[in-house]
Amino acid sequence: MLELRLVQGSLLKKVLESIKDLVTDANFDCSATGFSLQAMDSSHVALVALLLRSEGFEHYRCDRNISMGMNLNNMSKMLKCAGNDDIITIKGDDGSDTVTFMFESPNQDKISDFEMKLMDIDSEHLGIPEAEYHAIVKMPSSEFSRICKDLSSIGDTVVISVTKEGVKFSTRGDIGTANIVCRQNKTVDKATPLSESVTVSLSSELPVVVEYKIADMGYIRYYLAPKIEDDEEEMKS
Amino acid sequence: MLELRLVQGSLLKKVLESIKDLVTDANFDCSATGFSLQAMDSSHVALVALLLRSEGFEHYRCDRNISMGMNLNNMSKMLKCAGNDDIITIKGDDGSDTVTFMFESPNQDKISDFEMKLMDIDSEHLGIPEAEYHAIVKMPSSEFSRICKDLSSIGDTVVISVTKEGVKFSTRGDIGTANIVCRQNKTVDKATPLSESVTVSLSSELPVVVEYKIADMGYIRYYLAPKIEDDEEEMKS
Amino acid sequence: MLELRLVQGSLLKKVLESIKDLVTDANFDCSATGFSLQAMDSSHVALVALLLRSEGFEHYRCDRNISMGMNLNNMSKMLKCAGNDDIITIKGDDGSDTVTFMFESPNQDKISDFEMKLMDIDSEHLGIPEAEYHAIVKMPSSEFSRICKDLSSIGDTVVISVTKEGVKFSTRGDIGTANIVCRQNKTVDKATPLSESVTVSLSSELPVVVEYKIADMGYIRYYLAPKIEDDEEEMKS
Repeated sequence: MLELRLVQGSLLKKVLESIKDLVTDANFDCSATGFSLQAMDSSHVALVALLLRSEGFEHYRCDRNISMGMNLNNMSKMLKCAGNDDIITIKGDDGSDTVTFMFESPNQDKISDFEMKLMDIDSEHLGIPEAEYHAIVKMPSSEFSRICKDLSSIGDTVVISVTKEGVKFSTRGDIGTANIVCRQNKTVDKATPLSESVTVSLSSELPVVVEYKIADMGYIRYYLAPKIEDDEEEMKS
Repeated sequence: MLELRLVQGSLLKKVLESIKDLVTDANFDCSATGFSLQAMDSSHVALVALLLRSEGFEHYRCDRNISMGMNLNNMSKMLKCAGNDDIITIKGDDGSDTVTFMFESPNQDKISDFEMKLMDIDSEHLGIPEAEYHAIVKMPSSEFSRICKDLSSIGDTVVISVTKEGVKFSTRGDIGTANIVCRQNKTVDKATPLSESVTVSLSSELPVVVEYKIADMGYIRYYLAPKIEDDEEEMKS
Repeated sequence: MLELRLVQGSLLKKVLESIKDLVTDANFDCSATGFSLQAMDSSHVALVALLLRSEGFEHYRCDRNISMGMNLNNMSKMLKCAGNDDIITIKGDDGSDTVTFMFESPNQDKISDFEMKLMDIDSEHLGIPEAEYHAIVKMPSSEFSRICKDLSSIGDTVVISVTKEGVKFSTRGDIGTANIVCRQNKTVDKATPLSESVTVSLSSELPVVVEYKIADMGYIRYYLAPKIEDDEEEMKS
């Protein structure tokens, strides 16, 4: 039996919104450690890894490890029906082919049960080796999001270069080129939906890791494979 | 001659917005009693009944009963040109094939006249018998609206069940099922465009009536035919 | 060499947004006087004239007159990447086929360089003779914008009539007619993106001029050719 009660239910809503456009179907894995997910995007360029640690839940009961295959779009439809202040409880029974999301309004006046069909999803867990990164940049997530959005209007790829002075994002497209330099010590001044800051970890031979902390309970990490060298050269030339 | 002056013109704008997606063309009926409309939606599932009583108008002159056929989409285009604080006057002449909407800004700096072509619409007035309902639920219209929106993302039909404890809305669709229970005594905490609260009246053999009061001057009622039993059984099974 | 530093960079962003839907490609002309543009819309009904005087820039260096052909859509994509509080500097080199937009955040933490390809555009400068207008109407630009938007939902053309009492805007379409009268002395009560007020200058034989002042540094003027008489007669009949 599975019963996970999350008082700040809006966290789960936001987590799902940040994954569902990248991944269609995925297995959520429940263990004594926490509620987690690992999935590749459909183009196999990005790996998403989510962890919500058990300590972050008000109530966490998971009798045995269980993996539940969910269509993230359907899951999102249901979670959108939860109010932003609602308490969300995830319930499952051993051997059942459904999962139940229960939403309780703060004053207990409205109680909703949404039961969703599970699906069988083949997935292999990739071991992600701990790695040492040459550069780690922590910046306001709102700033990072703005830069990605801005550059995507100019070009398709981005080169991230880190020096002691700051981090440079560069792109090139049909209409011209763009370089954005953020100097070190930029203060965090805005909040974004999920997390105030983002950490970008880089090594020349490894996937970039973009990590958002989720309150005190976990993280979402995006591992992004680098473009092959031909393109990088073209960008730098 | 017809001249109806409504100081709170935004009421008429909101009324129209709440009807125009359901009904395309309709006759507005003017009499000493008030300004009213009765129309079926195109799928003949819902009957809309609107009444704005004459006492609610600052000035109400209607020399003889008159029925004016209007395209609600065109009428909405014109009413959208009225400011939210504008006074709206509806004017008509006997035998004329047009109706005029006059909008006056509160400080009288801006006066607009919109003249719209009328149309001939065949319609039969349905006598709606007074009925006694087994259950009458009054709830915040914002809550009702949210529940309808949420459930429509899961299924196509809804079963409403009322007990002494509260009211339950249930649906079922391809991706799963949903049940939302609202307990009695839920306080009204938000306002919606037209009306703060909605009243839902139910009897097992009668259409459901969903009623929104319009300030002190009238109402919009939606009479919704129940789905035939086959479907209901399917929903409950 | 060209280097124009505009502290209130958002002005340039707004200017471009108000031109780019009307004009696709245009030459920006730089001289000791200022940064200007003159272009016809694709249907050759409207002439846009922009002037940002050199005194309005914090730093203005223009060694010799230069004309830079830009695709306004691409330019807009780049300017959208500037923050609303950013300082914008336009840079160009003699004989170069690119222009650079530099954006500096107020605290200098973020510096962006966007380099855009220039294009060769054939254009002839129209001499716009100074004219004396029979009627000049100054009104809140928000009000003017609202009226244009409202009337465009009813008809395709507008007749503007000015008397001592006020200004009347009239249109006619398939669904009916509309007349909006604004009395003189209407106070400005709202701000719009670019300019608080608009000035409309009319003579029976001349293009209408719609002018928006840009802070203290210049203007955007739209010269609109009148519809040929056949249509006007039809409107008035």
